[in-house]
Amino acid sequence: MPGKVVVLAGGVGAARFLQGLAAVIPAEDITVIGNTGDDLEVHGLCVSPDLDTVTYTLAGVVDPAQGWGIAGDTFECLDHLEKLGGETWFRLGDRDLATHIYRTSLLRGGLPLSDVTARIGRSLGVRSRILPMSNDPVRTWLETDQGRLDFQTYFVKHQARDQVNGVEFIGAESAQPAPGVAGEILTARAVIVAPSNPIISIGPILAVAGIRDALRETKASVAAISPIVAGRALKGPTARMMEGLGMEASALAVAELYRDFADFFVLDRQDATSSGRVEALGMKPVVTDTVMASALVKKELARATLRAMES
Amino acid sequence: MPGKVVVLAGGVGAARFLQGLAAVIPAEDITVIGNTGDDLEVHGLCVSPDLDTVTYTLAGVVDPAQGWGIAGDTFECLDHLEKLGGETWFRLGDRDLATHIYRTSLLRGGLPLSDVTARIGRSLGVRSRILPMSNDPVRTWLETDQGRLDFQTYFVKHQARDQVNGVEFIGAESAQPAPGVAGEILTARAVIVAPSNPIISIGPILAVAGIRDALRETKASVAAISPIVAGRALKGPTARMMEGLGMEASALAVAELYRDFADFFVLDRQDATSSGRVEALGMKPVVTDTVMASALVKKELARATLRAMES
Repeated sequence: MPGKVVVLAGGVGAARFLQGLAAVIPAEDITVIGNTGDDLEVHGLCVSPDLDTVTYTLAGVVDPAQGWGIAGDTFECLDHLEKLGGETWFRLGDRDLATHIYRTSLLRGGLPLSDVTARIGRSLGVRSRILPMSNDPVRTWLETDQGRLDFQTYFVKHQARDQVNGVEFIGAESAQPAPGVAGEILTARAVIVAPSNPIISIGPILAVAGIRDALRETKASVAAISPIVAGRALKGPTARMMEGLGMEASALAVAELYRDFADFFVLDRQDATSSGRVEALGMKPVVTDTVMASALVKKELARATLRAMES
Repeated sequence: MPGKVVVLAGGVGAARFLQGLAAVIPAEDITVIGNTGDDLEVHGLCVSPDLDTVTYTLAGVVDPAQGWGIAGDTFECLDHLEKLGGETWFRLGDRDLATHIYRTSLLRGGLPLSDVTARIGRSLGVRSRILPMSNDPVRTWLETDQGRLDFQTYFVKHQARDQVNGVEFIGAESAQPAPGVAGEILTARAVIVAPSNPIISIGPILAVAGIRDALRETKASVAAISPIVAGRALKGPTARMMEGLGMEASALAVAELYRDFADFFVLDRQDATSSGRVEALGMKPVVTDTVMASALVKKELARATLRAMES
């Protein structure tokens, strides 16, 4: 089958799905478009958490327990930084730190993030293409009951405890898609929205001018996978965040967010009763197991999604 | 005895002397004025090798075998950086890296280097005052047979193999002494030039406008300790560098460089025959053991230097 399978991806949830996808099609046939709304500067270093999670996962070096960071990483630097009085709530392992040092040094040297991301992937042996949604900075800010917070302060420092009442993607309006992003979507054989948080993982990608248009225009089938199962999030604060924003925390509410460009909507067997209403939104429902508790489920989810799109 | 003992210091040789000095007088009574001509940016991080060597040594955490870096440090970050394709000739340990990350973040936040250095010292439990010679950037560049090289490229990357024909301290002319530097020299009870390379460790300090004047003006006795013993350097490329610059590699040639402000010159027993010529330069010779092979010799060198100055 010619053409690439393009995946819109957030962090851990998307990376788990990509593990399954890379087990059923050649890694070279996968292009990932990654969220950079969560990017931040830590101690002057440029950190791209979602891109790194995807890269480490596809490189096979991700910490399997937490789903992010490098397996077996040590924390000598961070422990010493704590001794010096530096802020250490953002947990940077020693090996992980090398990625940020390398990225920062290349970015400061003038290389765009897409080239930097490609270099890091290549160095770690990743055969899929990983593209940031944009080379321009887009930053996710949240209105919460604790005030206006940047994403990582909300997510890591406050451990996603605060009530979210609003979301903003600063810079998204003027940001251009990174070179290759629109082209990959338009020429793909299939486009999949990974089971990531639709608000703060997929939301920033869709907010970059031109990406949503490309998704509507592409001749490829587009499928979105629900990160909500039986009203609960597969991972993280998705459900609570959706409710805070006045939505229902349901697969159907996620489907509504993607109805203008998605042809297929993948939902869990536990939500099979929503199939009719997904269909009423104009999408073909694909009912399967989406709780990626094992390598087998990840693989089967990827296979079922592709099979539906290519039938 | 009131007043501070002020020590002009380069890196490892000076730090070894300071270990001895801190064993014979209270650490609180010592002020170090450190060379920053060797400072550099590595991967966007601000590194101050000489200040760190002095700080780690006085904090008791220095690697005793190499005389710099932190004892027991690991190199996970650097090893990963190498895998990514980054430059790794400047050996940064994981804990050491925390110092550079912390310093860089404070400097970028607008704190002057002298405050940053004080904070790092305090966090590591250092009770002596450590001052950079200047908060303004001064950079040592060398004319060599391999071209014009910054200090660390010459010293670390090329392992000090190249023939040095000229030395330049970029920025020294317009640099101001850091707050406290001139005052500490002028109000000291004694000033000691550590047994460091007179060209590239002490040279930059003396090149900062006002520091040499303060050394000439202070009412305190000033002693300089020879880093050259029997025509050889105690450490590093001092002897070869002096020859390359048309000097003799001898204790006497070092004495000549300091004759305008030094009252005492400390030389090794092996060079006792130069005593008369040191005296002819207008300095009182102090002959003792200067090869700091043990804690005892370090202590005795400090004690003999102070005793001569305070008798």
